[in-house]
Amino acid sequence: MLLADLLYWVGLVAVAVGAATGVFEAERKGMDLVGTVMVAVATGLGGGTVRDLLLDRNVFWVVDQTYLITAFATGILTFFIVRRRPISPRLFLYPDALALALFAVLGTQAALHWHAPWLVASLMGVITGVFGGVLRDIFCNQVPLIFLPGELYASAALAGCLLLIGLQALGVSPVWAAWLAAALIFGLRWAAIVFKISLPTFKARA
Amino acid sequence: MLLADLLYWVGLVAVAVGAATGVFEAERKGMDLVGTVMVAVATGLGGGTVRDLLLDRNVFWVVDQTYLITAFATGILTFFIVRRRPISPRLFLYPDALALALFAVLGTQAALHWHAPWLVASLMGVITGVFGGVLRDIFCNQVPLIFLPGELYASAALAGCLLLIGLQALGVSPVWAAWLAAALIFGLRWAAIVFKISLPTFKARA
Amino acid sequence: MLLADLLYWVGLVAVAVGAATGVFEAERKGMDLVGTVMVAVATGLGGGTVRDLLLDRNVFWVVDQTYLITAFATGILTFFIVRRRPISPRLFLYPDALALALFAVLGTQAALHWHAPWLVASLMGVITGVFGGVLRDIFCNQVPLIFLPGELYASAALAGCLLLIGLQALGVSPVWAAWLAAALIFGLRWAAIVFKISLPTFKARA
Repeated sequence: MLLADLLYWVGLVAVAVGAATGVFEAERKGMDLVGTVMVAVATGLGGGTVRDLLLDRNVFWVVDQTYLITAFATGILTFFIVRRRPISPRLFLYPDALALALFAVLGTQAALHWHAPWLVASLMGVITGVFGGVLRDIFCNQVPLIFLPGELYASAALAGCLLLIGLQALGVSPVWAAWLAAALIFGLRWAAIVFKISLPTFKARA
Repeated sequence: MLLADLLYWVGLVAVAVGAATGVFEAERKGMDLVGTVMVAVATGLGGGTVRDLLLDRNVFWVVDQTYLITAFATGILTFFIVRRRPISPRLFLYPDALALALFAVLGTQAALHWHAPWLVASLMGVITGVFGGVLRDIFCNQVPLIFLPGELYASAALAGCLLLIGLQALGVSPVWAAWLAAALIFGLRWAAIVFKISLPTFKARA
Repeated sequence: MLLADLLYWVGLVAVAVGAATGVFEAERKGMDLVGTVMVAVATGLGGGTVRDLLLDRNVFWVVDQTYLITAFATGILTFFIVRRRPISPRLFLYPDALALALFAVLGTQAALHWHAPWLVASLMGVITGVFGGVLRDIFCNQVPLIFLPGELYASAALAGCLLLIGLQALGVSPVWAAWLAAALIFGLRWAAIVFKISLPTFKARA
């Protein structure tokens, strides 16, 4: 019970972190309050929404509107804060890494619970973790940042999701597997930021 | 019965208005007939489609293809009319405001009927009203117009949806609540166009 | 049984062809491995996914992950091949026409099986055939190629889907109707490439 409560609150914080990163992009595009809140909501809730649609589950924030209220309120609040005095998006790098780890693990477990096969389940984890940002970038009319060369992000999430599935297949308890997977994702992301680790890439031509 | 019939016809007109506004954007991008019709269909039906997917209802135009035929036919017709002689998109400002009001009210009531919580229901109303235009702009590779500074649009829809929910919570009959909410949305939109009312905004930097 | 097996394999090849065309666009945008694989997966599986969401069916690759593995593997493999030595996308023109024909026919039959009305069913066929490419272009931040003037593509698919529905309504067996429709789509696409047949279009202004 206590663990479930903790996870619920951490989930809300992760949604808020996502929503805040949406506001930074909306600001760069000169959006108004409505645009900013829409982008914030899409960034905070988009990953889980796409996962739930693909798995044909009830969309999580339609069932429990606390998530929607959190994203809305964060969007409005951050809009007025950032409007008064710019905040460095770098402040959010590590909270965002934590949100990525949490979303990816929760998304994978939701998919496993639905009996999705292993590669599908790990992709659902990755989608839950990164698709909010992808939607944000589509709304802001730019190539999704995570598709472009940069420090490990989606790949860190994928590694963690695969670890989670592997550990559970080996008989490790879901709780321990989740902690280890989340630690791997956060650790990889942390290392990627500090040591600038990246994946092979095409050279841009267009 | 008569009211339901009237609403059905008004709904078809609203779909046609949405589809026509899609054609104007498609023309600016130099699309061909197929692209234009696809954008017209997405603009006319997109908002209700996203709402139905999120609420896990049957998509309205899959069940009753009259909507799809309306959007298709409007797209083709408007393509050939606009191709021969440009029409000012401003002609559609007030029909579009009416369509916004209608879609927002119908979308909110559909969500309430599904027992969605209040903030979710009002967001569903807004999505039904504006998401066709958002899809249109994504297909046309531009930042959704309604996210950028301009006269009240999504915010007018949100105000109406919240009024509708408030009135029904106070015991007002659904029909009267719907008329008042639609009037508020149309009135706000009308006032916003005439008096150039807008929301607080970020200054564009990128 | 044999026919079903054949179709299954042809379907996998079509997914692989779609995924490969995604890699070419990702390369033009200078994406990294993760971005490339995500775009490849979206291109290969996107059309069928949108169809399944709209029809409220189980998403095909969530149920059978062979499709996902195919798209993943093709994306990774093509990434490393193209990175070493560019391949002309023109090599894929005819395989892509075949994939279009197959997807459109399978998509229409899936929709008919679900008892979708005729125009909805033919649109589902078109969506299955072309929406992977539309998602690819949205992820790559460009106006979907098939919406812009060019040789017949979506319109060839639409013609085939309507033929399929017409033939089945006239009592032709589903298998024969499918072959004839696929032949029409492939033939139209082939003729369009060779003779540069295109649809009426707007002149680009923006």
